[in-house]
Amino acid sequence: MLVHFKRGCALLALVVVSAQAFAQTDPLPSWNDGPTKQRIINFVQVTTDHASPKNVPPEQRIAAFDQDGTLWVEHPMYTQLVYCLEQVPAVVAKKPELKNVEPFKTVLSGDKAAIAKLTMPDLEKILAATLSGMTVEEFNAQVKQWLAAAKDPRWHRPYTDLIYQPMREVMLYLRANGYRTYIVTGGGQDFVREYADEVYGVPPEQVVGTAGETKYGYAKDGTPILTKEPKPFLINDGPGKPVGIHLVIGRRPYAAFGNSGGDRQMLEYTRAGDGSRLAMLVLHDDAKREYAYGPAQKLPDSKIGTFPQSLYDEAKQKGWFVISMKSDWKSIFAFEP
Amino acid sequence: MLVHFKRGCALLALVVVSAQAFAQTDPLPSWNDGPTKQRIINFVQVTTDHASPKNVPPEQRIAAFDQDGTLWVEHPMYTQLVYCLEQVPAVVAKKPELKNVEPFKTVLSGDKAAIAKLTMPDLEKILAATLSGMTVEEFNAQVKQWLAAAKDPRWHRPYTDLIYQPMREVMLYLRANGYRTYIVTGGGQDFVREYADEVYGVPPEQVVGTAGETKYGYAKDGTPILTKEPKPFLINDGPGKPVGIHLVIGRRPYAAFGNSGGDRQMLEYTRAGDGSRLAMLVLHDDAKREYAYGPAQKLPDSKIGTFPQSLYDEAKQKGWFVISMKSDWKSIFAFEP
Repeated sequence: MLVHFKRGCALLALVVVSAQAFAQTDPLPSWNDGPTKQRIINFVQVTTDHASPKNVPPEQRIAAFDQDGTLWVEHPMYTQLVYCLEQVPAVVAKKPELKNVEPFKTVLSGDKAAIAKLTMPDLEKILAATLSGMTVEEFNAQVKQWLAAAKDPRWHRPYTDLIYQPMREVMLYLRANGYRTYIVTGGGQDFVREYADEVYGVPPEQVVGTAGETKYGYAKDGTPILTKEPKPFLINDGPGKPVGIHLVIGRRPYAAFGNSGGDRQMLEYTRAGDGSRLAMLVLHDDAKREYAYGPAQKLPDSKIGTFPQSLYDEAKQKGWFVISMKSDWKSIFAFEP
Repeated sequence: MLVHFKRGCALLALVVVSAQAFAQTDPLPSWNDGPTKQRIINFVQVTTDHASPKNVPPEQRIAAFDQDGTLWVEHPMYTQLVYCLEQVPAVVAKKPELKNVEPFKTVLSGDKAAIAKLTMPDLEKILAATLSGMTVEEFNAQVKQWLAAAKDPRWHRPYTDLIYQPMREVMLYLRANGYRTYIVTGGGQDFVREYADEVYGVPPEQVVGTAGETKYGYAKDGTPILTKEPKPFLINDGPGKPVGIHLVIGRRPYAAFGNSGGDRQMLEYTRAGDGSRLAMLVLHDDAKREYAYGPAQKLPDSKIGTFPQSLYDEAKQKGWFVISMKSDWKSIFAFEP
């Protein structure tokens, strides 16, 4: 009997400790208490509570995250664009005929003011030239090498350090509750896949992004290869995000996080499902700790890559939640606790 | 001590029973013993043995399966094509102008000999007309309804009964060993997704298939919808299979199963990876229990959807395995044990 009694006591103690640990562990320690944090917690609780009519079966627990400006810093320039601009000298070295051709000439000049003025068609030419003409494996190796060496100009840290710690916590919290977290980005799928597993814990098959065509062929020695072509294929932005989600996942997410006009349709599509659906927009309103732009600065609606006032108004009207970096986030980066 | 002794005995008994159960359980009971079955078992053992230099980390354990002719019957006509032909009257009822236009006129005539002679461009017109013009959800509902009622003409059973039991066992065996099983089909992604989970245990996000464009828009009441368009987007066949695998999975499979020329590149691409890679082709050589075609009947190389002699020769030369339905499979269907 003594043995049983002791074991019983130990078991009871274990249960009590676990319950306390559970009650005391804040799943979102980098978030300030308030309605936004509470909304995330309520969503997870209601969709994973077996007794709730809004319980979501584990296989349907899908959460979609935009990347640039939602999971990491996008200002003053998308990291992938920095990468592409820095690849231009190597591309021109291989194709000297581009040296005096715009927009490559401007990029090579190093004139930052002129580079900042490049138009979208210019940037598309640069993307096409620097993201193609090599095998998928060669591209992966180039991105890996660049990421290991490159530093952002403000914090002087690897770009992969510029992840928003509060959003990483949301991903971890969702995964701990049976959600699969997908990145659904307007950025390049192959680019993001190179670091998403290490940085976000998101494996390659859970990265949906903009993709150029790839072409199947054979190397000189007969080895089958996939080559990246300079032709757009899946434009995973704006209305393309629900399209990409349907193509790659085939399920409507229950939660979606974004920060710009390019995420509007993904959030609408997510919210249009039945049951409890979470749609949230990150508002960049913290000029001191990060940046302030979008509705926080009342920029014109047409500004690319930003959070237009009309989206802010739509979010408020439709009951989406706007995450204020300034007031909702206790800390922003893991390196600045 | 008595307590400990008893518990020790119980534990030992448990270990012995488990080891016996393991040794006695045949993971592939519908397969005849022989080199093909042994090759599958060896592949699984070597890639999941932590002590083996060929051990594959769990997250990289990907297996790709063609569907038509590899997982279920494709002869005399792809099931999805039967579906499309049977949708023609409904499409013409909505668009009466198609009534006297070919190839719809021939399909409406019910003349089986004439229908069998329709060309690929004819069939493409039929696919485009019957697989578009509705929302994704409407299409899913139509397929579900059709599958519940339709019977194949030979076995008089639902098409979803015509799954090869030996291949289902391979999928189960791989999954029990940490592999994720993907369907990589030239057939329609949305079509296959409708039943793949129930029939194969393959969830929607693990179905890579041929996909038409989808268009994001709004219903009259403002609800966001995805509409299926009559324009091809991802042609997941032949060289398109490695392309689709890269787009949706982003990892090279360790095992691939196919049965036709449309699987050649997927098998080549799979085999070109390092470590132990499995590439297998199902040969339809059992006219009695199923059908005999391809190299079993020495059909001309150009015959669509079949296993050309050149692929058979390539498979033998490269050390791929050819699965003989006649000699390797003890039983073919679950309903004919």
